[in-house]
Parts: sequence; structure tokens; C-alpha cells
Amino acid sequence: MLNRLPSSISALLDSRTEGHSLPAGLYTRDDVFAADLDVFFHRHWIQVGLECDVPEPGDAVTLEIGSASLILLRDDDGEIRVIRNSCRHRGARLLDEGRSIVSKLVCPYHQWTYELSGELIHAPHMGMDFDKSCRSLKPVHFKSIGGLIYVCLSDDPPADVAMLEAVMEARLAPYDIRQAKVAFQFDVVEKGNWKLTIENNRECYHCSANHPELCVSFIDLDFGFDPASLSPEDREEAERHQALYDARTREWEADGYPSAAIEQLAGNTTNFRTQRLIIAGAGESQTPDATAASARLLGTMTRKDAGDTHLWGHNSWNHFMGDHAVVITIVPLAADRTLVRTKWLVHQDAVEGVDYDLDKLTSVWLATTDQDSALVERSHAGIADPAYEPGPYSTFTEGQLDNFVTWYIERLRAHGY
Amino acid sequence: MLNRLPSSISALLDSRTEGHSLPAGLYTRDDVFAADLDVFFHRHWIQVGLECDVPEPGDAVTLEIGSASLILLRDDDGEIRVIRNSCRHRGARLLDEGRSIVSKLVCPYHQWTYELSGELIHAPHMGMDFDKSCRSLKPVHFKSIGGLIYVCLSDDPPADVAMLEAVMEARLAPYDIRQAKVAFQFDVVEKGNWKLTIENNRECYHCSANHPELCVSFIDLDFGFDPASLSPEDREEAERHQALYDARTREWEADGYPSAAIEQLAGNTTNFRTQRLIIAGAGESQTPDATAASARLLGTMTRKDAGDTHLWGHNSWNHFMGDHAVVITIVPLAADRTLVRTKWLVHQDAVEGVDYDLDKLTSVWLATTDQDSALVERSHAGIADPAYEPGPYSTFTEGQLDNFVTWYIERLRAHGY
Amino acid sequence: MLNRLPSSISALLDSRTEGHSLPAGLYTRDDVFAADLDVFFHRHWIQVGLECDVPEPGDAVTLEIGSASLILLRDDDGEIRVIRNSCRHRGARLLDEGRSIVSKLVCPYHQWTYELSGELIHAPHMGMDFDKSCRSLKPVHFKSIGGLIYVCLSDDPPADVAMLEAVMEARLAPYDIRQAKVAFQFDVVEKGNWKLTIENNRECYHCSANHPELCVSFIDLDFGFDPASLSPEDREEAERHQALYDARTREWEADGYPSAAIEQLAGNTTNFRTQRLIIAGAGESQTPDATAASARLLGTMTRKDAGDTHLWGHNSWNHFMGDHAVVITIVPLAADRTLVRTKWLVHQDAVEGVDYDLDKLTSVWLATTDQDSALVERSHAGIADPAYEPGPYSTFTEGQLDNFVTWYIERLRAHGY
Repeated sequence: MLNRLPSSISALLDSRTEGHSLPAGLYTRDDVFAADLDVFFHRHWIQVGLECDVPEPGDAVTLEIGSASLILLRDDDGEIRVIRNSCRHRGARLLDEGRSIVSKLVCPYHQWTYELSGELIHAPHMGMDFDKSCRSLKPVHFKSIGGLIYVCLSDDPPADVAMLEAVMEARLAPYDIRQAKVAFQFDVVEKGNWKLTIENNRECYHCSANHPELCVSFIDLDFGFDPASLSPEDREEAERHQALYDARTREWEADGYPSAAIEQLAGNTTNFRTQRLIIAGAGESQTPDATAASARLLGTMTRKDAGDTHLWGHNSWNHFMGDHAVVITIVPLAADRTLVRTKWLVHQDAVEGVDYDLDKLTSVWLATTDQDSALVERSHAGIADPAYEPGPYSTFTEGQLDNFVTWYIERLRAHGY
Repeated sequence: MLNRLPSSISALLDSRTEGHSLPAGLYTRDDVFAADLDVFFHRHWIQVGLECDVPEPGDAVTLEIGSASLILLRDDDGEIRVIRNSCRHRGARLLDEGRSIVSKLVCPYHQWTYELSGELIHAPHMGMDFDKSCRSLKPVHFKSIGGLIYVCLSDDPPADVAMLEAVMEARLAPYDIRQAKVAFQFDVVEKGNWKLTIENNRECYHCSANHPELCVSFIDLDFGFDPASLSPEDREEAERHQALYDARTREWEADGYPSAAIEQLAGNTTNFRTQRLIIAGAGESQTPDATAASARLLGTMTRKDAGDTHLWGHNSWNHFMGDHAVVITIVPLAADRTLVRTKWLVHQDAVEGVDYDLDKLTSVWLATTDQDSALVERSHAGIADPAYEPGPYSTFTEGQLDNFVTWYIERLRAHGY
Repeated sequence: MLNRLPSSISALLDSRTEGHSLPAGLYTRDDVFAADLDVFFHRHWIQVGLECDVPEPGDAVTLEIGSASLILLRDDDGEIRVIRNSCRHRGARLLDEGRSIVSKLVCPYHQWTYELSGELIHAPHMGMDFDKSCRSLKPVHFKSIGGLIYVCLSDDPPADVAMLEAVMEARLAPYDIRQAKVAFQFDVVEKGNWKLTIENNRECYHCSANHPELCVSFIDLDFGFDPASLSPEDREEAERHQALYDARTREWEADGYPSAAIEQLAGNTTNFRTQRLIIAGAGESQTPDATAASARLLGTMTRKDAGDTHLWGHNSWNHFMGDHAVVITIVPLAADRTLVRTKWLVHQDAVEGVDYDLDKLTSVWLATTDQDSALVERSHAGIADPAYEPGPYSTFTEGQLDNFVTWYIERLRAHGY
């Protein structure tokens, strides 16, 4: 009889072949999913929301991460708070999923009442000796980086988020995401493992055949190419385009827009990459014709041709353009289910139907998200097949995937797997 | 690497802090759910039905408890029987879920045929040597206590049900529940652990803010209060009301209605509590205006002001009033799913639209059940949150919860956990 | 405390009582389900499709077996191929579930392109050094036996399929199933374990009370009976009918139609049974009046009265008659869910509405499948009940079930359980 016990997670990690996709179990197994949630969604910084999700004092929104629920709110002093959505009496959820307006946080079960700071101020029938001071709602480590809310659910948040913070505060400043407006939000549940969602996002090898709308403004070859696989004409154009980057990056930086690629990937704890990318065609925005969707530009931006400042994290990808931004965050729901949440941001004073047309603003990424969802499902189904064996990443176009899974393995190892 | 094995159930029990709600795993884990089903729903007496569910000879109804299905039936001699709903040939279900009328029990698969006693009388094609006598349908230990059907699925049913039987036969006699009529039945599946359903039922701390309809006839302070947390006026009224109990209980008992509180809780095997409670306002019944819903009183009752004889078990709660009774039983479906079944009983000769109005009869507990279902869901979701830690029960208003979970732990221990 | 660990599969096998249905866990447990899928659906030959599912070059259809997906296709030379539906790059499904027409197999994700033979011919961006030759799509062991497609997903397919092949090529030749037409296909998901689906199929003890439509043409007594359980008249008729078989089988064989029962059951690896059965009543076909449904007979058949050549496998049953054939295959979906797929075959030139009426062709087995689905659900529910204990098979009418579960246990043992 063969040994029928499943491999340990550690043995699965050992079995990975360099340069190849992961062994199936790391995408499909429930124990790996539990480890992933714990390590990557509770012990690392994750991007979960926006300051402008709660623009006014008293605005609150819940954030669900696995079985954890957080309350992101703006208190009466206009400060952002992130606290746990579980009453300190018998644990009940204080706020229902979604948006609320609150002056105090009152548990609907027994009326325990908390300040927006989390301080417990009223607990009926608990007696004179009851010490309210040790029953405040639990706070959560968070950072607003240029208006993007990152949280870490552990007590020991990774310190190297400092680099992300330093780099992105500077890059995001002119877009003033803190004061932006969420023009639209769209959720989709992809039928695949969260790492397949991220792998799919880290290459554009699949773009030309799958994303006709995105390819108007996006240049798939920015993500690498094998010169030998292109026609002589395509190869020349690709090489010309690569050369453009040096020139364009120098110009942008001279104009005060930090643009060069900065990466903190494998070898680090907090994973991110940013670079200002050239927008193709009309050169302004990720819209059906690559022209700006919003006449009112973001923040203090004065030009539409400032490219696309992309930002990747291990649970997010973002595109900041002159006229609007697209912010996409993911939360794993099960080994084979991933929530993908997309938000489109415009200037807070931009008026729908006047300054921007909602359809023009959203159509490219709505289509892209839909296409990617189908690809991730196709990918997960095939990986769950007993016939699957890890395949080779292209060194030209899938280097970022190799880097991501290398980081993934490092981080599980660092947490004892 | 941390030890990532889940704690044993025994270690979870050890980790409980006195006076506090249970550790999360006891509410959420699948292995605990399996243990709960085995210990509390197979090895203890549980309330599952009514004699008047099967008023006529040949009436049968199935009762589902986890993957077990029982047949409650009335045989040709008018006797109640409870037998297992699994053919002794290849196991097939004999009766479909719900109500049937039967003269024999004939398995639809291969026509094995049983008397209503369970005796196998026909098994085609089994040959001359086949011994039918050892293939009777399996009987189930049951008791009708004042018309309430209790079963125990183990071969070793707890003996201390005797106290419940002695007390409740006497108290229920004048209501004649055996001959009552089920006027209405309503099922809801609560999205929470069964112990949260019971905990929710064992306190009225949540009533004033959540059950406006019930509070017309129900007095939440009957379930305890902290004098210091009330306004001087409320406190005085509460204390006056408490004093009323002595007087009213003496009167009722003098009139031949046993009324004083009797409890058999922690420290015992079979868990129950009964007491005759005062109905507020008009004082008659749990209806929107606290007046009787049925003009025809139950059994031999001659007065509408005989209060509310409540009866709690570990899977039930009941209210017996002059004009009607409400009987609520629960069955766990999963660690986070609980079936709550409510039945409203009236005199067998009471005629809908003449003696009682169905809406007046049912509206208070329909509303209350709905509200409680939302609270249990809110409670379970928060307890499943990694932020949850057990919180303190109020010594004034949640003493019955502390007693219940103490009993729960004792009973798991007694069964080897 | 009792030992609460579940029994090993091996201990479950040990606990089986001869002549009785299996212990519950072998029908209900998830670990047994995983073992069953591995042993019976990956390491044995299973019947999964038909040559005539893909009549033309370029026709392809996917076959799902657990999480495995296969592509059954006909290549440009008219040859049948069965290959794994998982790209050798990052595993993505090449074809969507269902039917396709293909000239190459192009992965929608990154356009890796394969010949219909599985050979990889194009893999963009993989570089000059990339060796395509070791990245062909994986082939699957398969056999077309008289047009029925059998596959074995392991690398070591059982050799004793040779007997099945030799016997059935000869018996199926006159029906020319390779060139038949699939007139109708119907899927149902039964709420029961796959072994209950097969057990249900291996006896007709349940037919007389459950399958009125089938019993017009089917003779339940062919599957055994206890003479003592029949009325004298029924017994005489049954015995007369049994005697008919010798005569009729001799006639058929004299006419060149192999007809005698041939079995390869317990004691062997590949499980099958075939026999030419007498059709009751009008004697032609399994239709509502037992007359042929199709005026155009199958293959080179010249007579409608050639009986019913039945063929059983461990995941299939088939009936080949003069005018049409019914082919039923099953695939387990979960311990308690089984896909049953029924196909009705007629001559490739038979025209609906002219040569045959679809309703007459399909109604008997549509009704039978529906009835059996309800019986399997009833059976599974009862077996999952803690009250279930294995019951005795009738030695007269359920000998084939005893043989099947004996084989089942042998095969698990042979694979190390």
C-alpha cells in the first residue's frame, strides 16, 4: 500500500521546481488555504480599502477578510479608525455588512455602547464592579498610504512596509486619493485560488488574445517578450517602444513625477512594485479610446498624459492616471473562490454626466475583470485535474510570476511551514 | 513553527473561563458539532414532538435528528410508537419526510412489510429459512410527558428524566396537551450554533431592545436585573413586581395550579426548568394585546389568568397559557445551522375563525422567532471572528447561560471528552 | 472515553458480513469516496463514451471523471483519440465542458497550440531553447470495444479487459454501434453513493413494484426468484419462462447471435456480465408496448426479435436490441452524488419523425431512471442513518449484489486498503 497520507505543506513547498508553477496542492488544498489566510492575510499588510470609502465623520464600512470583519470608520475628529467588528460582551457583530452611519457603536444585542474610538462607555446590568476599561473594541494595525488603507491583523506587523509608504506617499501625492470619490464599485467572485488571480495579474502574455478592450491603452509587451517569437516588424516596434521608456521616464521625473520602477519582491516581507507606464494610443487613460474619461483631473494633476502609475501588492493592483484611478483588491473566500473588488476613483468634485461618463470610465476594466475571471476559472479547473503537473514560466513574459511564487514559498517558510 | 494542530475538545473545555461565554471552537468546530450531536441529541432525552402531532390511529410523522430519522406514529390501539425509519433489509427509508397515514409500514423498495409495532411480517424472496423475528424495525426509547414526546436515541437513557416527568405531568394535566390541536407550525433555520440559540433563549437581557411584541406580555426583568442600572422609577417597579410573585404564586398554588420554580440544571443529567410566570398587561396570553387568542381554553382550564407555565429543556422552550400553548424545539443541522420549530396549540375543538384568530394567535412568537434568528446569526458571526474572546455573562441577567454552559461542559466530560 | 477515531478503511472492509450489504461508512465516508475514485475510476477500465459521440473528424467532447477532464476526439484521419484536457504550460483547461469542433487544440490562455494527436507545435515567448517535444498533451489509455469507449486513467491498465473485448466485439458487431447515432442523451444526478446506483441496477427484485413501464418488456424473474414466495400460478409461469431460455438461446446462437451468459465478476479485475435476454410481450424492444421504436434497425440487424443483449460493467449498463440501444454510464460526484448519463442509439440513417418517434424511443428508460433515482436517494438516506446495520441480500434475487460488493472489497484490498 502506498503512503496515502497527504504530504505536509512543507513537503509540498520542497517539491516545487524552480521556474515552474506551483504543485497542485498549494492551489487546491484546504489546509494550504487555511495557512494562506493566516500567513498572507493575517500576518502581512494587505490593501483593503480607501480613506474615501468613509468621506464624512460617522461614515463606517465593514471589511470582511475570511471570518474576520473589520470596521473602517471616520471619527468625529475626521480621523480614520479600523476596529474589530465583534462586541466584547458575547462577541456579536456590531455592524451589519456594508455601509453605516454611526455616532456611537451600539451592539444591537444588549446595547453595549462604544465610542468611535472603541472605548466602552455603557454596559447595562453588568454591575458596579465591572471594569469597562478592559473591554474596549479591539483596534487593528493600519496605515493610510496616500489614501489607500492597509491593515495587518497580527500584533507584529512587518516593518518593511516603510518602503512602500515612503515610495507611494510621494507618488500618490499629486493624485490626492485621500480626497477622491468612489464613482463605482464592482465585485466578482472568481472560481479559483487567490494565487491564480495574482499570477494572472502579473503577466500580460495572455492580454493580446483575451483583452481587446484593455489592449487599446495597455502595452502587453511592457511585461516582457521573446524577441524571437515576434515578426521582424513587431520586434522592431517592441524594441522602439522599450527605448521610449528611458526618454519618457526622464521627462516625467524632470517634471516632478517619480516614475522609475521600484520593486520590493522576493527576499522581502512586504511585496510591492510600482512604475509609471506609458499609455498607448491617445495616451491618456484606460478607456475604450485611451482618452481621459473625466474632464476633472485627480487631485492637483494638470496633465492627462502622465501615464499610468501602477502599484502591485500581493492582494491588489492599482492604476493611477491623470483623470481617474482603478483600485483592485482581492480576498480569498475558499481554496477555489476569490473575491475581486474593483473601485473607480475620480476627483471628489467630478460630477457624473457632466465631468465624466460612467460607462466610458468603467467599461475597460469591467470587461477585463470578466475576461480574467473566466481565465482564472479555466486555470484552477485544470490545476485541480490529476493530469496537471507544474509547467514552465516563460522567462521573458512570466518572470514576475516566478518572483511571486518564490516570495510565497519564502513567506510560508518564514512562518514555520 | 507553532503547533498547528487544533486543540482537542478536552483542551477546549479546559480553557473555558468561569462566568464567561465558551471558547469559539465549542461553537464553531465540526468535531465539536459531531460530539454535540452524539452526546446531547443521541444520549440525552430531547423533546421532539407531541402526541397531538398524530391524533388518529394510523397517523405518522417523521422526525429528523441529524442523519437519523424517526417515525412517530399512533397504532391501531391508539398507542404512541416511535421507531427508526430504516428498513432492516438494505436500510432504505420507509416513510418520506413529513406526514403519512399508514396501516402497515411497507418499504417502497422491496415491499418488506412491518406492523405498526415494527414487527416484520412479509419479506418476499428471502427464502424459507429466513428468520423474520430478528428483523423488526428498531424501537426508540420515548416518553410522553403530559403529551410532549421526548426520545433518547441511546440504549442507556438517563434515569433522572423521572423528575421532569413527575413535575410536568402534574403541571400539564389541566392543559391536556395530549388532546390539543396543532393550530400552526413554523420552521426557521437559524444561521448559528444550537447553543447560541439556547443561550439566546435563556436570557431576556436582549428583550427590551429587540422584542417589542413579546414585551407587551413578557416581563424581561423576571429574568434578572442589576438594580443599579435602572432608573429609580424602573427599579421600584421592578422590585414591586418581584414582590408580586410571592403573592401570586401562593394564590395559584392554593387554587391547585403548581407554580413555584423547579430547576434541574447543572449537576444533573436531564436539564429542565419550569415556573409559572406572570403575564404583563391584560395578563392572559402572549398575544399583541396580552388578551387570550382563543375563546375556547385548553383542556380543563377555566381561567385565562393562570399565567404562563414555562418549561425549558436543553433543546426546547415551551409556554402553556390558559388559551393556548407555544412549543418550540430545536435540532442542530450543522455547527452553524439550527432548525427551530414552533407549534401553536389550542383546544382540539377550537375552530379557527370562530374560537380563535390565527394571526392573533401566532403573531407574537412569529415576530420573536424572526428577531431571535437575526440575533443568533449576529452572535455566531462574531464568535467565528478571530477577534472574538469569551466575554463575561452578567451575574444579574445571564446566570442561566452560565448554568447552561456549565452543564454543557459537565455532560461532555461525563461522556469522555 | 471511547476511541473516537474513525475506523480505517481496511477495518471497515474487515467488518463486512458475508451475504450482507456493506457497512455504512463504505457508502458515506469522504475518505472511502476518495479511495473509490482512485481505485475504481482511475485504476480500472471504465465505460465513458461512444465512438459515435464524435462522428466526424474534428469532433470533440469532454468527459469529466471527478476532477479529471478528458477530451474524446476524432482526428483528421478519422481515428479516435483520448487526451487530458489540461495545457502543459500552466494547466489551464483547453476545451470547455461539452462539445466542440476543433482543427488544432489551442489553449485560450496563452495560445499554446497542439495537434489533435496532442503534439505541441506552438508556444509563444518560451524562447529558442524550449523543448516542445516533452510538452505534448498527455494521452489516456483507451479502447473502443464495439464502439463503446473504455478508458483507464492509470499507467497500468488491467490486462483482463481482453476478455471483455473479445466477447463484446463479437456480440456487438451486428449492431454496428461504431456507426450508430445518438438520438437522445439525458443526465440525472442521483442523491446516493455510486455503489447504491450499481446495486440498484444489479437486481430486479424492486422492479415489479417500482417500474411499471419497464416491466412491459422486462422480466424481473430473469434476475432470480424464490419459488416459495410466488403463487403456484406465478411459480409455474416463472419456471416455464426459465425453460424457454435454453431453447431460445440455442436458436439465437444457431442463427449466429452469441447469446449465452458470460460473466467475469468477483475474482477478476475487470468486471462485466453479458447475456441475451428475452423481451417480454411483443418481444421486440424496451418501449411502452414492447414493439420496436425504430423502423430502421441497428447495423446489419435484420430481425426485431433478437432479444436484449445486456452488458454490465462496474460503472455502466447497456441494452442492445434490434432497433435501438440504451447505454448508461455513471460517474461519482461525491460520496452521496452520482451522475447517471443515458444515451439512446439508433441507426445513423434513422430519421426522427420518419423512422422513429423520440417519445416512444425514450419514455421507458426516462421513467425507469427517474424511479431508480428516487430509490437510490431513499436507500442512501437510510444507510446514512445511525440506525442502519447491514442487511441480508436475498440469495435468490440479490446474488449479483453480493458478487459486486465482494468484488469491490477484493479490488480495494488489491490496491492496498
